[in-house]
Amino acid sequence: MATIFAVGVGPGDPELLTRKAERVLRQADVILAPVSNPSEASVALATIRGFLDESRQEVIVHQFPMTSDKARLLHAWQEAAALIAVRAEDGKDVAFVTIGDPLFYSTFIYLQRILREICPQIPIEIVPGISSVNAAAAAAGIPLVEADEKMAVIPATAGVEKIAEALARFETVVLLKVKPVFGDILELIRQTGREQSTVFVERVGSDRQKVLTDFAEIAAHAPDYLSLMIIRCSC
Amino acid sequence: MATIFAVGVGPGDPELLTRKAERVLRQADVILAPVSNPSEASVALATIRGFLDESRQEVIVHQFPMTSDKARLLHAWQEAAALIAVRAEDGKDVAFVTIGDPLFYSTFIYLQRILREICPQIPIEIVPGISSVNAAAAAAGIPLVEADEKMAVIPATAGVEKIAEALARFETVVLLKVKPVFGDILELIRQTGREQSTVFVERVGSDRQKVLTDFAEIAAHAPDYLSLMIIRCSC
Repeated sequence: MATIFAVGVGPGDPELLTRKAERVLRQADVILAPVSNPSEASVALATIRGFLDESRQEVIVHQFPMTSDKARLLHAWQEAAALIAVRAEDGKDVAFVTIGDPLFYSTFIYLQRILREICPQIPIEIVPGISSVNAAAAAAGIPLVEADEKMAVIPATAGVEKIAEALARFETVVLLKVKPVFGDILELIRQTGREQSTVFVERVGSDRQKVLTDFAEIAAHAPDYLSLMIIRCSC
Repeated sequence: MATIFAVGVGPGDPELLTRKAERVLRQADVILAPVSNPSEASVALATIRGFLDESRQEVIVHQFPMTSDKARLLHAWQEAAALIAVRAEDGKDVAFVTIGDPLFYSTFIYLQRILREICPQIPIEIVPGISSVNAAAAAAGIPLVEADEKMAVIPATAGVEKIAEALARFETVVLLKVKPVFGDILELIRQTGREQSTVFVERVGSDRQKVLTDFAEIAAHAPDYLSLMIIRCSC
């Protein structure tokens, strides 16, 4: 029977794919890659293009709009799930590719729910990928957590109070999507005295990767949408 | 100049190495692999053995004892750092291998501090690896976090109060090293009504991998040292 694969391709550097991801992508009959804007290239597809044989494999680029409109999002997921299900039911192995890891803030989580409803008989295999958190720590060369330390991962969009709470309780706080509340975050870091143990990483794994460790430089920077911060305790 | 590499080899399945990890390990002059007990094989070394050429590469297995005795640990780290530094200063590329990711609860974090002191001129490059958290979620096929959800990662040895606090504030709580406080954790899960959204994963990525999703089965199980739990909100 055909299998549906969710393949984490890591942060965007083709060398950070796992060997398993490479094998699955070379063997799959169909590759479905997400794009948020039809005028832009798919980052996931750009990362894996070197492993594909487009004369043999069907490559579909599907748009998942960047919107908070639930109805539009659901429509995009349902369309993608249908594209996958019809091919898998036809006996074809389909690989859905996702930046980072498929179960860590990825569109695949929604797709998986729909797929389990519309084609419960088709097995889904997850190929984990290097998440932006591990990739950013590696790029900056700074530890995430050691020994009995605790780590909180928070999308900054969850709100400034949640960030403040985590800073009070966790040795390491990783903030994702920092752009919309960047000023508030900088203020919290100053208040908690963590200026010297904060790292800012933008577009990790890409040609445009930026790693800032100097707090004055971080504070002067206008962050990109794909930015994260690792805030360590100053103890 | 020679480079010191810290190579995350993932959870133990050779296919979950990144392509970069494979390249670095094939090219390195020296491989240093940790072992916790001299009578056992190194899990990291077993994972990568297929990529090595022991006729050309020097492979060193170094013991890092499982102890809370700081003096003994420090001695083991200093010895390992010296083994690495002397070879790197001699112009050899040295790869230290670590299960999972080198900056996520890894021995390498301590080694890195010592290396930066004793040979600050030698560059250190980190090759991130698939962490047990992402590997366990993939094995179980369950989401870690989506949208604005927050995730806490807690070594269960941090104490039951910390776990209870996290369960009250985070949609997803990942507990590592659950063995010593397994009974207390089960009780907390019952109290917070999360029996239906708890997954237990033992020795992920190995031949002895076990994934349990039924709470009665989890509660009846005697966990191994390398066990983790992913506890999702029941909402």
